[in-house]
Amino acid sequence: MIKVFKIGGNVVDNLAALDSFLSDFVTVEGAKILIHGGGKIATQISKSLGIPTTMIEGRRVTDADTLGVVTMVYAGGVNKDITSRLQRKGLNTIGLCGVDGCLIASHRRKPAPVDYGLVGDPYKVNTELIRTLTDAGYNLVIAPITFDPECGLLNTNADTVAAAVATGLAAEGEVELIYCFEKSGVLRDVNDESSLIEHITREDFARLRAEGVVADGMLPKLENSFKAIDSGVARVRICSAENIASGRGTVLE
Amino acid sequence: MIKVFKIGGNVVDNLAALDSFLSDFVTVEGAKILIHGGGKIATQISKSLGIPTTMIEGRRVTDADTLGVVTMVYAGGVNKDITSRLQRKGLNTIGLCGVDGCLIASHRRKPAPVDYGLVGDPYKVNTELIRTLTDAGYNLVIAPITFDPECGLLNTNADTVAAAVATGLAAEGEVELIYCFEKSGVLRDVNDESSLIEHITREDFARLRAEGVVADGMLPKLENSFKAIDSGVARVRICSAENIASGRGTVLE
Repeated sequence: MIKVFKIGGNVVDNLAALDSFLSDFVTVEGAKILIHGGGKIATQISKSLGIPTTMIEGRRVTDADTLGVVTMVYAGGVNKDITSRLQRKGLNTIGLCGVDGCLIASHRRKPAPVDYGLVGDPYKVNTELIRTLTDAGYNLVIAPITFDPECGLLNTNADTVAAAVATGLAAEGEVELIYCFEKSGVLRDVNDESSLIEHITREDFARLRAEGVVADGMLPKLENSFKAIDSGVARVRICSAENIASGRGTVLE
Repeated sequence: MIKVFKIGGNVVDNLAALDSFLSDFVTVEGAKILIHGGGKIATQISKSLGIPTTMIEGRRVTDADTLGVVTMVYAGGVNKDITSRLQRKGLNTIGLCGVDGCLIASHRRKPAPVDYGLVGDPYKVNTELIRTLTDAGYNLVIAPITFDPECGLLNTNADTVAAAVATGLAAEGEVELIYCFEKSGVLRDVNDESSLIEHITREDFARLRAEGVVADGMLPKLENSFKAIDSGVARVRICSAENIASGRGTVLE
């Protein structure tokens, strides 16, 4: 069983939360992979460099200058900081992004209906490289920059990268995908942490969606999750980055 | 035979020179490792972010903010750009820095006689990781950020990283170390490319140094080189990044 975790910008941006998450991550048994988002640092650095940031529906429009910044920040700053913290906590870790060994090959997204610029949709994961490294005892930290042999580096949604990695590995063995964020899981009432829904089946999802309980950012997360399950991922868990060790959260099956 | 190349900031800063070098690098037979410097980009980005840059004898003084910038720029921007270019030229390459799998462990340099800040001196290279990857068919691109288990990430001179990697690998097999820069090699007259010295022995070095022919930046490069030879590196070549394929340059033996 290999576990693929994803943490978003909210965790990356909060050093105390990040460090606490990483301390828990170290205690997770077996081979594990952490895919991280980028957080607000890229926006701040873009601003300092005079590069305007454009977001459409919460997603970054990536021109060549912005790609330069996100590559630096995600694959350099954030990725190596996390790798260093994990090494210092005693977990032998390697930080990579999608271009390394063509780890995550992607196609540049078509510019219609929305032109997000230099953004990739993954189509192939080099699971042989992942297995080579995990078999040698390394854990992996992966930045959400993917590689299109035609275009080069591409900015990619970290949830999508996590789903692609989990799906790729599922062809070869049991995989659990764990999305970590700021809530305890999927909540019936987004303002009430005690309204956690512990299990969601595909039928539940259709109903929750129709009822409007699952909306906004949670919608693509659950869509990605069920797509991953359809492609062989054993289990998807959506939980708080604060208690990955507890097993609490929403389990999708 | 494994070949360890080092390119400096002058090559990294000049995209046409870098791309031409990488096209030649791809044609070099056998397993190869490229260690790259950072160039002026780190200084420019520091300036934009309002972080002052201090250099002592051509070396960057690295405070915490500067370390953040060089980690982003070297291990993120430059490293992934080079890796992407090599992948697009058909060379299966992985970009790493010293923290990844504890590839290059270093001690933070003592603050006397000169306090360079968060700067590392390598003491151990994870040659097992290098062999695992080269045996699997990958070539490596390494950014000059090393890892001290006590302090975390440390900025490190790229020449020193190259010598450390070559020396580490020399304990297990034949290694050639190739320093690439803007001149054809060690020149008797620094302004005359035709004054190339084709071979330098240890005795020649002592004499050339006494005569003042070898001075400034070339002095630590040759010292590093002979130290590498003492530690088992078969051959060190100092040559122009423009013609690594030709075999031209200064050979130290």
